[in-house]
Amino acid sequence: MAMANPKNYFSSNFKLGILGGGQLGKMLLYETRKFDIHTIVMDASEDAPCKIACNEFVLGDLMDFDAVYNLGQKVDVLTIEIENVNVDALEKLEREGMKIYPPTKALRIIQNKAKQKLFYVDKGIPTADFQRFAYKSEIEDSISNGGMKFPFVWKAARFGYDGQGVNVVRKLEDLNGLPEGECITEELVDFKNELSVIVARSVSGEVKCYPVVEMEFHPEANQVEYVICPARIDTKVAQKAQETALRASDALQHVGLLAVELFQTQDDRILVNEVAPRPHNSGHYSIEASYTNQFEQHIRAILDLPLGDTRSKVAGIMVNLVGAEGHTGDVVYENMEEILRLGGVTPHIYGKKQTRPFRKMGHVTIVNEAITEARRIAQQVKETIKVISK
Amino acid sequence: MAMANPKNYFSSNFKLGILGGGQLGKMLLYETRKFDIHTIVMDASEDAPCKIACNEFVLGDLMDFDAVYNLGQKVDVLTIEIENVNVDALEKLEREGMKIYPPTKALRIIQNKAKQKLFYVDKGIPTADFQRFAYKSEIEDSISNGGMKFPFVWKAARFGYDGQGVNVVRKLEDLNGLPEGECITEELVDFKNELSVIVARSVSGEVKCYPVVEMEFHPEANQVEYVICPARIDTKVAQKAQETALRASDALQHVGLLAVELFQTQDDRILVNEVAPRPHNSGHYSIEASYTNQFEQHIRAILDLPLGDTRSKVAGIMVNLVGAEGHTGDVVYENMEEILRLGGVTPHIYGKKQTRPFRKMGHVTIVNEAITEARRIAQQVKETIKVISK
Repeated sequence: MAMANPKNYFSSNFKLGILGGGQLGKMLLYETRKFDIHTIVMDASEDAPCKIACNEFVLGDLMDFDAVYNLGQKVDVLTIEIENVNVDALEKLEREGMKIYPPTKALRIIQNKAKQKLFYVDKGIPTADFQRFAYKSEIEDSISNGGMKFPFVWKAARFGYDGQGVNVVRKLEDLNGLPEGECITEELVDFKNELSVIVARSVSGEVKCYPVVEMEFHPEANQVEYVICPARIDTKVAQKAQETALRASDALQHVGLLAVELFQTQDDRILVNEVAPRPHNSGHYSIEASYTNQFEQHIRAILDLPLGDTRSKVAGIMVNLVGAEGHTGDVVYENMEEILRLGGVTPHIYGKKQTRPFRKMGHVTIVNEAITEARRIAQQVKETIKVISK
Repeated sequence: MAMANPKNYFSSNFKLGILGGGQLGKMLLYETRKFDIHTIVMDASEDAPCKIACNEFVLGDLMDFDAVYNLGQKVDVLTIEIENVNVDALEKLEREGMKIYPPTKALRIIQNKAKQKLFYVDKGIPTADFQRFAYKSEIEDSISNGGMKFPFVWKAARFGYDGQGVNVVRKLEDLNGLPEGECITEELVDFKNELSVIVARSVSGEVKCYPVVEMEFHPEANQVEYVICPARIDTKVAQKAQETALRASDALQHVGLLAVELFQTQDDRILVNEVAPRPHNSGHYSIEASYTNQFEQHIRAILDLPLGDTRSKVAGIMVNLVGAEGHTGDVVYENMEEILRLGGVTPHIYGKKQTRPFRKMGHVTIVNEAITEARRIAQQVKETIKVISK
């Protein structure tokens, strides 16, 4: 796997492995194509979106030790597009000299939300107060002992993704139906804004920070509805958000992207909510708005190439396309033409043939020189397009 | 092949056929992925760049009647990424009700440079004076009869591509080695600038025009070195260039993109040089600089979707990456890291493993708010990166 010139990736025999073949991976692959980097993707699904864009596709379970280890044997650098992978296999590869980005040490911390929270406390990184539980039943004990008050946030310690595994608990019954396993509870932060900052960190430690973006969640589905860049917040708050994200990045010593989700409290404190060590939904706007989009930046970082410019050319807003309520079946994107008629509107359809309520089917980016105009058009997009079934 | 709702392309059973599997096709396919449009690409090469990004790949000769006709049977709309295709087969498909964009009538005119020139004369579209010859030997006769004077431009009537099939003839010997077949000769225009304007025209006749770009050619290889958007020319000249491009577009009644290459003469006349009915090298800057890039625009036009915004977010300059003289063999992109260190620089490597002098290996786009700064960085890129062999 050793190369004569480790920086000579372009059109060479260098091979990049990617664990996970989903939509994030697919967008990552567009960038590897631009750089002509040979890619091997592993995913458990025969229908993985990446299958059409990678050089080689390996069918395999990301949680299976042997599958992950064997993929590692075939590549020069290994990265992820999803956190839920077999870290034991990655650790063995890393010990054997394999380049794993993010490094397994960071990945282990991030994979488990309890570990992640304890890490923030250890490093003095501000985060919401929390408690750790090995079983859900312990929460009920704590409540009946008077040790906890409603409302609070329940989070599964592992395998959460895109708001899955996160629930607001306002009364005892809200615990019904939640998984029994390891979890944390967090104070329900009364925030002014949910923010996100993406930090890129290269193998040799070059660091660049994207602008602060503002996120609006759907009240029921707990999925992001709008991501607005730049966040419409005070410059000082934005600076504090970037500083906090950079502290998390430095503490984790990750390589590649780190998406840092943050709360801006009513009294303008910044708390780290959680992080993801990969391209992130909150950075999709960057494809159309940034000088260097998050996917290209991740590639640059893990290949130890110089990082690109993280500034924006124009204001960008991202609207998630989720399945409408009451619709399950073959998808139809109603009024697509109407939104294409609006200026600066780019749909990204993920190619899932079946819709169901709140299923993430794609996203639309709206760019404009003026953020107020972008916001106006974004609302129009959201009110116009309908992801329904036939 | 008929569909219930002809505009319902996204994630549906709709199939788009593309003749030609080269680099332009590959960039076109990134956009079909974004829209989740099912694509079938035909190319004669097993190593066609498109193979990795299309849904289905068909190995076939683009000049073969049956191959082209059979592909047409499989798709709902058929487009091209190269002009040199069997138009007889396309005409038969068109007569049978198939949607061929560009329409064969426009394609027939464009495929043959003599036809193209006569068309401009018929339509009163300004173009350089020319003569038409069935055989090269007729040129020699005309010269010895005193009917032609040096210098002039020789162009093969057919199968030219990217400056291939175009030569400046300054003395009789320059004709040696040129093909014997049908050709035209043109006056050598003493131009101030070579310009290009890309016009998009949709099935229902919506028309949008990109800004005028300025082209600089390599003096020997006759390949574009810099494409600069916007062209640094007088507003009135730019307006005249756009008007002329729109006249050509309207006269040809094409569907999809039409790249119109123009000369700005010393006395500020605008002459049409030649046109291409597809995405074009002079529009590559649009991936990074435009609200809607040329590839997405082509897809919108041929699917009769509303056309996107053709304005630029920032100034854009494109540098072609061509193989250095004296180098033939396995390619190395020397100093790639140095250019990635510069702001707003995006390389596009086409994935050819072998370089040779002047072979087009990729392009680099440089974007910046200020065109003077973009131009400075573009020069730095050009002087820094070397496409050499190992």
